[in-house]
Amino acid sequence: MYIKSTCLAIVACSVYLTAAVSSEVAIPTFDHWEINPPPAGYAGMAEVFPPDRDYPQGRIVAKGAEAEKTFISVFCTVPVETGQEYRLTLDLESGGANEQAVPAFRCTVKNAAGTEVIVNDGGLPKAAIAGYASSRTFVCAENKLASSADGQLRLTFYVMGLKSGSVTLTGAKLVAVGASQKNDHQPAEFPDGRGGLIFNEDCTEFFYSRPAEDMNIEGLKRYMDRYLPHGHQIRIIMLNPGSHNNNFGATSSPVMWEGVTFNADGTATDRFGKKLEPGVTRMYRNMKSFCDNGINVYHVWIDHLRQRGVSPWVSLRMNDAHDAMTPDEERTDHRKDPEFRIAAYNPGDWHDQSSDYEKPEVRQLFLSIMDDYMETFDADGFEMDWMRFGRFFKHGREIVCAPLLTDMMRHFRAKADEMAARRGRPVKIAVRVPPRPDAARRLGYDVQAWADERLFDILIPTNFLWSTDADCPVADWRRIVGSDVLIAPGIERAVNPYVNTGFCGDAAIRRGFAAGWFHRGADMVYLFNHMSMDPDMNDGIMCTVGAPATAEKGARRHPLTFPDFPYIGTSRSSELPAAINPQVTRAFRIPVGKAPAPGRHAWVVAGFNNADAPVPQCRLNSVLLPQAKRLPPSMLGDFIKKALAWNIPDGILLDDENVVEITNDADKQITANWIEIQISAE
Amino acid sequence: MYIKSTCLAIVACSVYLTAAVSSEVAIPTFDHWEINPPPAGYAGMAEVFPPDRDYPQGRIVAKGAEAEKTFISVFCTVPVETGQEYRLTLDLESGGANEQAVPAFRCTVKNAAGTEVIVNDGGLPKAAIAGYASSRTFVCAENKLASSADGQLRLTFYVMGLKSGSVTLTGAKLVAVGASQKNDHQPAEFPDGRGGLIFNEDCTEFFYSRPAEDMNIEGLKRYMDRYLPHGHQIRIIMLNPGSHNNNFGATSSPVMWEGVTFNADGTATDRFGKKLEPGVTRMYRNMKSFCDNGINVYHVWIDHLRQRGVSPWVSLRMNDAHDAMTPDEERTDHRKDPEFRIAAYNPGDWHDQSSDYEKPEVRQLFLSIMDDYMETFDADGFEMDWMRFGRFFKHGREIVCAPLLTDMMRHFRAKADEMAARRGRPVKIAVRVPPRPDAARRLGYDVQAWADERLFDILIPTNFLWSTDADCPVADWRRIVGSDVLIAPGIERAVNPYVNTGFCGDAAIRRGFAAGWFHRGADMVYLFNHMSMDPDMNDGIMCTVGAPATAEKGARRHPLTFPDFPYIGTSRSSELPAAINPQVTRAFRIPVGKAPAPGRHAWVVAGFNNADAPVPQCRLNSVLLPQAKRLPPSMLGDFIKKALAWNIPDGILLDDENVVEITNDADKQITANWIEIQISAE
Repeated sequence: MYIKSTCLAIVACSVYLTAAVSSEVAIPTFDHWEINPPPAGYAGMAEVFPPDRDYPQGRIVAKGAEAEKTFISVFCTVPVETGQEYRLTLDLESGGANEQAVPAFRCTVKNAAGTEVIVNDGGLPKAAIAGYASSRTFVCAENKLASSADGQLRLTFYVMGLKSGSVTLTGAKLVAVGASQKNDHQPAEFPDGRGGLIFNEDCTEFFYSRPAEDMNIEGLKRYMDRYLPHGHQIRIIMLNPGSHNNNFGATSSPVMWEGVTFNADGTATDRFGKKLEPGVTRMYRNMKSFCDNGINVYHVWIDHLRQRGVSPWVSLRMNDAHDAMTPDEERTDHRKDPEFRIAAYNPGDWHDQSSDYEKPEVRQLFLSIMDDYMETFDADGFEMDWMRFGRFFKHGREIVCAPLLTDMMRHFRAKADEMAARRGRPVKIAVRVPPRPDAARRLGYDVQAWADERLFDILIPTNFLWSTDADCPVADWRRIVGSDVLIAPGIERAVNPYVNTGFCGDAAIRRGFAAGWFHRGADMVYLFNHMSMDPDMNDGIMCTVGAPATAEKGARRHPLTFPDFPYIGTSRSSELPAAINPQVTRAFRIPVGKAPAPGRHAWVVAGFNNADAPVPQCRLNSVLLPQAKRLPPSMLGDFIKKALAWNIPDGILLDDENVVEITNDADKQITANWIEIQISAE
Repeated sequence: MYIKSTCLAIVACSVYLTAAVSSEVAIPTFDHWEINPPPAGYAGMAEVFPPDRDYPQGRIVAKGAEAEKTFISVFCTVPVETGQEYRLTLDLESGGANEQAVPAFRCTVKNAAGTEVIVNDGGLPKAAIAGYASSRTFVCAENKLASSADGQLRLTFYVMGLKSGSVTLTGAKLVAVGASQKNDHQPAEFPDGRGGLIFNEDCTEFFYSRPAEDMNIEGLKRYMDRYLPHGHQIRIIMLNPGSHNNNFGATSSPVMWEGVTFNADGTATDRFGKKLEPGVTRMYRNMKSFCDNGINVYHVWIDHLRQRGVSPWVSLRMNDAHDAMTPDEERTDHRKDPEFRIAAYNPGDWHDQSSDYEKPEVRQLFLSIMDDYMETFDADGFEMDWMRFGRFFKHGREIVCAPLLTDMMRHFRAKADEMAARRGRPVKIAVRVPPRPDAARRLGYDVQAWADERLFDILIPTNFLWSTDADCPVADWRRIVGSDVLIAPGIERAVNPYVNTGFCGDAAIRRGFAAGWFHRGADMVYLFNHMSMDPDMNDGIMCTVGAPATAEKGARRHPLTFPDFPYIGTSRSSELPAAINPQVTRAFRIPVGKAPAPGRHAWVVAGFNNADAPVPQCRLNSVLLPQAKRLPPSMLGDFIKKALAWNIPDGILLDDENVVEITNDADKQITANWIEIQISAE
């Protein structure tokens, strides 16, 4: 069922609101937006209203249809400049919309052939409903807007899955941010010197994800350039060629495709005669093609990054255990022999298949690999990635064996100094360690000793995998490492409130992490496993997460996460999911960095595992917040079945840590599986 | 059924083993022990065997009776000296005894009237079975042995509840420890200067537990002397007169019995007319009697302790919330007014009824009380007990309010310095804080600032109540407070593996805590809530827990415990109970202090919540331990339904942290609710 509101007249372009600031693009009032008919098999209704006193832009009210699949879509067009970056902010209200409803937006332009090309979609990452506004920065990329036939951007607002109630668009703002720019990969400036992103590129993503046509020098450069939009904040890219084996033909460890037979029909078999899956086949073939063509991937990338103004480093995963149980991965003697594994008696745990560094042969292998890389690569620095996978000694022997790692660190520093003397420029060292000092100690890393002997220049406290530790105690680390070392806490790809929801979040969440850490004295921010984020999201991350000002001023989200590291003897300690019995209060401590100045909006957002969960009370720092509004839970993640937002009045949020309390005043248990403080853009 | 073994001939004294060392008391070989008939209604059988090559002392085999209540008892007598302290060690073996079987021992002497008087009973606190040997130190107290008619000590070994299988006594050793001494309350010496106990006496125990006849100066002295056996290691007793109110008639806060009417019939009613329970009535009456008689309890105790060579201090509970919801406790205005409570909206939580220190009136009250105490009492020091109850600010406002507590600390230091100048001797300050630095910070205690300004002399990191934090990070605290401050981690009465098993443990567990902390650099050990431990156990604690050498050399137990403090936003983090699924391994990290020299026995002991739990594998520091032996679970605590012990071969235990791994190789889940490393006496 598709009903076009009687009060809607299609108007080509005509009436625009006056833009409040010079960089704001005027958007037609909502009574001038056009309603698309729903796709075949879908229903839904939109009604548009002209401006009035309460709604100066007018309104678009989307209504669902109980019994049918629904899709409601309205659009307008606005003039835009090629290469300009814009931020879109939408204001929505919910009229009791069912929680499966998802509001979204899409930005398109017409190319020379007259075809609509999507510039930005899926939009509203955690968009706004029920007073819960959201902004999104997007880039109208040069190659797309250049082919725009009419210099117009089409903004489409759409709502999916709306069964009952309504969703109302009450405001839309499009602001050009910064001057019009070419896609020149120009780095951002850091006015106060603080900040910068460190980006880790893993050893397989390029070869696995790119077609054979990209396996050349231009393909390598293009791939790196993806990470470097105009205004990017990346200062260092850590290039990782592997761990026990390598992807570029080094002789200090086996190559990854060792023993693989590439068949004439395009397939490949491992040395046990097992057929490899197509993706792995492509990856090995791509790696090998560079060797066959005499191109060293890392020489190319190191040179290219330097030209782009980004510092190239090489990272060695000190003990990666990916797929360690598959025979194909057992390419070194000590990976074949169970005696060389940390705990072969735990076959289900990858970590336990890591090599036992108490064995001199294992340490010697990694000393040799790093020596080889330092000799081979004219990089600005080298990273010892102690967090892949982070387990180095038999259970219980970590602390007594810690001096063995300290000895290795001494060797690496001496070798780096030797290379620096030979090359006539500094060669630095970074170490990736767990986010908490006690975890580092219990994994066998005597970071205090490393710091006392000045064996490294950058400390990268990072979770292992399942989430990012928003609560990383940067000040504690500072006490340990002193003021000469840079501290760059790390963001993992996954943003789980507990293991494992499959949620990866958005740029606003990453600004939240960064703002929290910068407030605690971090120098930079590190990105791990971000190679595979979608490019659109990458742009938002690369340009805003890496500096105190941009992270703090952007819309930011501060979810409750947990520390995650593989030391033995402590279970993972996520506070979520949190079952809350009737008449019980549970509290959650959330760091938010610098509290926003009055005038920025802020909300506590909570997710629950049951669509029927009664609405609890919420306090922030002991102050009871106004009644909750309901959000579409899909904004947060598929694992959340009900989502609520409470507006935070000015003056309640504090710097750094804040306490959210959820009081269940109903008569049945509720289970919170997401807690977040969200702050609107400045 | 009572069967006396045919091979037993009752021999009055006769055959003794040769004592291996001069201080060892010769004990009759087991074939010369006498079998008591079981009490009426009980059955059981004992069989005794003479020495052979494998059992140089012979054996006593106790066997049960499946269908009946059982009690098997054998005894011998040995000559002992009056006032001498002895240590008894027993070796036992289990022949598949049912787990309800409890082996025990009793030591008795005959008094002048010929009556058996118990010197020590209930014995074998966590005694030995299945190769799990146990020793116990006990004192044959002067007043008891003095009345021994024959200078003999009777050792009775008995087994209760033995249904199936057998328990065999294979060895017994009685050694005199130290020279014969009078009960002169002489303190221990600390050869290397390190060590000492700090003992906290609460504000009610004496008045609640003692009869009216003790309410005089001699009664007060006798009470303190209980804590001071010959060779005690107590250096400081913290005397606590209350919190918001007091027990001795001060005017700086209400007296505890304010508004209470003492009736002629011996009962009492509070000011609301509610009849008080007899114990509380007695307590108030006792407190008041000293006031009525013009005796200041604390002046008496301070003088007496000084005479005993113990340093007297006064402790103020900075925010006690005991019974805070009962109207009778609302004696100050700010306890009546919900606005002055931290979170009146959580009526079920005592902590939340504590007073809000952000209110100036509250801080002023406690400043006044402490000023009053410093003026009134000529003590060597004063303790700010920030851990009763440990919550001082509204949830989420702790960190922003921390400077308020720092200001109070400045005031206290200044006042102490003023008193020191007036009295011409030092007046020191101690602070009781949570066991973990991050918890302290999140409760609003800026210990780093306090240390930087040298506002205290002794740091007492302690759990709140439910357990003792065996893993207290003393070295982290040392980094914060520096070398001039003494660190005295605290032992709570409860020894729970999780909340709340009701288990309080024994002296060996306390030696374990102390040995662990001394190894990490602690200076002293603090005892909280130990006023009410049974006197026998107190003696063992007071004489052995307080110095590195005695704690380390005694039999010691290192159970897995958990940190417990009341900051908001983190759930309690006990690792136990630990459900372990089939084919899964769970690991537990246990600090043991200095690893024992070869030759001392050591075991991993695990308890399970189900008598039918399959026997898992156990590793220590990655080494698979020999097959488990079964223990009577009652040795560990009532909440444990099955207990196992694995012997630890020499060379596996490490200093400080050790990792116990339990692998469930059966096909059903098991749940461990107790994990411990036990080390025999040197």
